[in-house]
Amino acid sequence: MKILIIGAAGMIGRKLLHRLAAEGEIGGQKIAGFTLADVIAPQAPPGLPARALTADLTIPGAAQTLIADRPDLIFHLAGIVSGEAEKNFEKGYQVNLDGTRALFEAIRREHEGSGYRPKLIFTSSVAVFGAPLPDVIGEDFLTAPLTSYGTQKAIAELLLADYSRRGFFDGIGIRLPTICIRPGAPNAAASGFFSNILREPLVGREAILPVPDTLRHWFASPRTAISFLVHAASLDTTALGPRRNLNMPGLSATVADAIDALKTVAGEDAVNLIRREPDEGITRMISAWARDFDASRAISLGFVGETSFEDIIRIHIEDELTGSAKPS
Amino acid sequence: MKILIIGAAGMIGRKLLHRLAAEGEIGGQKIAGFTLADVIAPQAPPGLPARALTADLTIPGAAQTLIADRPDLIFHLAGIVSGEAEKNFEKGYQVNLDGTRALFEAIRREHEGSGYRPKLIFTSSVAVFGAPLPDVIGEDFLTAPLTSYGTQKAIAELLLADYSRRGFFDGIGIRLPTICIRPGAPNAAASGFFSNILREPLVGREAILPVPDTLRHWFASPRTAISFLVHAASLDTTALGPRRNLNMPGLSATVADAIDALKTVAGEDAVNLIRREPDEGITRMISAWARDFDASRAISLGFVGETSFEDIIRIHIEDELTGSAKPS
Repeated sequence: MKILIIGAAGMIGRKLLHRLAAEGEIGGQKIAGFTLADVIAPQAPPGLPARALTADLTIPGAAQTLIADRPDLIFHLAGIVSGEAEKNFEKGYQVNLDGTRALFEAIRREHEGSGYRPKLIFTSSVAVFGAPLPDVIGEDFLTAPLTSYGTQKAIAELLLADYSRRGFFDGIGIRLPTICIRPGAPNAAASGFFSNILREPLVGREAILPVPDTLRHWFASPRTAISFLVHAASLDTTALGPRRNLNMPGLSATVADAIDALKTVAGEDAVNLIRREPDEGITRMISAWARDFDASRAISLGFVGETSFEDIIRIHIEDELTGSAKPS
Repeated sequence: MKILIIGAAGMIGRKLLHRLAAEGEIGGQKIAGFTLADVIAPQAPPGLPARALTADLTIPGAAQTLIADRPDLIFHLAGIVSGEAEKNFEKGYQVNLDGTRALFEAIRREHEGSGYRPKLIFTSSVAVFGAPLPDVIGEDFLTAPLTSYGTQKAIAELLLADYSRRGFFDGIGIRLPTICIRPGAPNAAASGFFSNILREPLVGREAILPVPDTLRHWFASPRTAISFLVHAASLDTTALGPRRNLNMPGLSATVADAIDALKTVAGEDAVNLIRREPDEGITRMISAWARDFDASRAISLGFVGETSFEDIIRIHIEDELTGSAKPS
């Protein structure tokens, strides 16, 4: 099993690679080696053969190079985030739409020539949905995004379904919940505060909460997001039918739920490090986001999400803080 | 008011032009002139100034040429039909996706330079929906197409909504029901028989019915389709909100309803010209198509559809057969 990871230097890419390299197999099949690609140089894992490539899918020929050794399994995780795609219209479409299409087209051309048909896992987003939203978003709800990022993800999903229907590859689109707790420095995602108000207090630092405690949203831990990708890779897609894009099971929780869990896990001192600085603009934007989903299709296919915010915090402590919270 | 019609040589384009030229105004505004474009030379109407251009949106620079005189209103009707898009994957994406995006991009670049912001009416299709479908498709139902044509239309809808949200143009996507009775020679659309079994017997010719009489589908006459386009052009889009793509009101009817109406309008002799040649492939495909819609959004915005198949047949007789059916 040869595996290509595009976006291998990103948070999800690195964690996925770490898990796959540690396990040495996926879905019962031994991993023969990796091709790792990103716009900044990805780091190869120890132990398994790996080609690490600095690659930009928007450059003609780049996608062909990435699939040159005909990987059996492709994880397409690359993309620019919502805030950046909204700020830079052209770059967002180039990377998130044209880059994805270039990859799909390179696979199609190889398929036409040789019958090549890899499994392809694509990370989409709940940003494909836009207000007005029901309290619980059903499996048949329309994708009417309110950002250019969400539009680009929704278009990529449509392409993935059509290319899969045509038999060019065997694709699954995974609509990830908001990842929480996102480790490391904040990125340009507007949802960053959801992670900040937990990650920072856990190490004794202040964090700003710009929205009311009552605001509800949809979450998964990084570890669980990786488990979605690994599960998708070994899934028999005949059970999926033509609808290849799946809402992942998440945790529907309010900001208050997150803060309560922080108190349980790390105490009152940690909670006191959260500084409330209401921001109407951010509140208005996030209030329009999805609050809850019916993810019964994914659940029936064996995807398993979180059930409490305490678990989400404990996973962060185990995976990022080597086992213990470090409040000041 | 300067008007650009792309796809002006097609059936819908010619009928739209005919009506606009005859009325000389749209939404209370005098028409100053037309730019007419198509891949085959469109015919200019008498009376009003018109530039007729042979143009292919997939050729670099073509879209810029079409909007060079900054039309106030653009009808984008061009595209290749479902059967052809399914047969020729690359051509379908080139024309229906890349051609549409080239037009949108040309408008955006002009907008960035000068603040240009035309009204844009785009003809989409109920092919954006794919089985499994409910008996009545609601306003919030997902677009999960089962053809490359439907995929291309769904992607164009997403782009239209995002470009409108950004303020580059003021767009409306019109999901046309299956047009019936389509005049002239059959095209590559798989739905052709719906028109054939009425149009041909009305002039004394046999027609083949490949599906059962019980099959239900969603229809509008060509005249009503034109009225949708004209109404959309004069609509205040603030009432639309961010969801810019609308199911048009159609007539939900079975093949038996159509045949009953033919009998009422043209008699038993006409009905006897329908030859039943069941085709499992066509039946399977059409059975997966939309049967009925909740089009309450469009109806509340003033769009008016047909209410009987007899009206659909009478409109064909009035508009195409100069007032009388001609059975043999």
